Amino acid sequence: MNKEYKHIKVIGFDADDTLWVNETYFRDAEEAFAKLLEQFETLNKIDQELFKMEMKNLPLYGYGVKGFILSMVEMALELSNNNVSNKTIQAILEIGKDMINKPVELLDGVEEVLKALSKNYRLIIATKGDLLDQERKLEKSGLIEYFHHIEVLSDKQEANYSKLLNHLDIKPSEFLMVGNSLKSDILPLVNIKAHAIHVPFHTTWTHEQVDESETNGKSYKTVNSLLDILPLLN
Amino acid sequence: MNKEYKHIKVIGFDADDTLWVNETYFRDAEEAFAKLLEQFETLNKIDQELFKMEMKNLPLYGYGVKGFILSMVEMALELSNNNVSNKTIQAILEIGKDMINKPVELLDGVEEVLKALSKNYRLIIATKGDLLDQERKLEKSGLIEYFHHIEVLSDKQEANYSKLLNHLDIKPSEFLMVGNSLKSDILPLVNIKAHAIHVPFHTTWTHEQVDESETNGKSYKTVNSLLDILPLLN
Repeated sequence: MNKEYKHIKVIGFDADDTLWVNETYFRDAEEAFAKLLEQFETLNKIDQELFKMEMKNLPLYGYGVKGFILSMVEMALELSNNNVSNKTIQAILEIGKDMINKPVELLDGVEEVLKALSKNYRLIIATKGDLLDQERKLEKSGLIEYFHHIEVLSDKQEANYSKLLNHLDIKPSEFLMVGNSLKSDILPLVNIKAHAIHVPFHTTWTHEQVDESETNGKSYKTVNSLLDILPLLN
Repeated sequence: MNKEYKHIKVIGFDADDTLWVNETYFRDAEEAFAKLLEQFETLNKIDQELFKMEMKNLPLYGYGVKGFILSMVEMALELSNNNVSNKTIQAILEIGKDMINKPVELLDGVEEVLKALSKNYRLIIATKGDLLDQERKLEKSGLIEYFHHIEVLSDKQEANYSKLLNHLDIKPSEFLMVGNSLKSDILPLVNIKAHAIHVPFHTTWTHEQVDESETNGKSYKTVNSLLDILPLLN
């Protein structure tokens, strides 16, 4: 075991794109959405405008599929100058329902890692999606037995994590977060002096991208695969 | 203090219609929705059909405002046989955003009760709405200092509460739930041998209504106002 991790009691795992595929489904949905509206604008412009709409609505709707569907509907009205057909709105709702019903595709080594770590640590899921959606994915994943519980955070900023640690009754030095997003799973933890290990996923949502200057000099580890965290913690 | 409550360590409060007004806003929204579509159907029929649509979508969308907005959009398409105008869809999205932005109107005695109880008990909010929405309401309410944290449950059935107690590391006899819904806040608790106090609200969502036979012989208290729980617990 790596010495710096010897005080760790609880390990928080991000869910989407850390345990299972997610961003890929959003990309597919964005593509399908743009195709539905291509009579009104170029695919590229539609994609950009949808992202802006999501950002505009984020304070109101928060993260997760439902807010994303609502933003697609609003975007369709706006982009078409209120000339979009009812059939297209219906197709947008269908895209959303399909996303919710997607099977859960586990990433490499997930089960092996959780099984091993759950023997020595309390494991939790710390995610900012919809609670119901994440519970459903956890159910489908077959991983539920390894986790003590799910923590759904309305955002993943320092204050949210501080509240989480308070709620778990542990000190920052006793918590390790593992996730694919530098912005949400790594930097806030480093800033409150907890531990963090970055496991990149091949696709990152624009909203989650960070500048190199923000990670400069920050203390966290990056591994290629979830499997690489085992020797650090066992 | 009432003897039967002497082992209680944690008190869970339902939020909507227990701490602050909520159902009233949903009723107003349903009314506004029906008016938007009255060229297609009677107000009464629209109301009934919307409820059916919500129930159909509940397993997919869960509780909360966002799923409600999505169900209104879907209902508008269906009810109009795909003849609803873009302006009406836009108006539906606005109804939803207005709901999210509503001010928080506290019910009688809430602050006084929480202030007094927070001295001797750990207080939590146990709700099944959207996390972001509930956090926002708590922020606006000015009550945040009295609560240890918010627990958002994807549903409020016995299994959800058992998981909650496990997560809080307490026994059923150490937990008291206070809320306005017999179905969600009272009966599941009684069934797992935890404590429950019912504080009715004047309006109850059809989905939350229970038959008299279900409450028959069950052991829980009903009080007229939240203020009435103080002498039982202090």
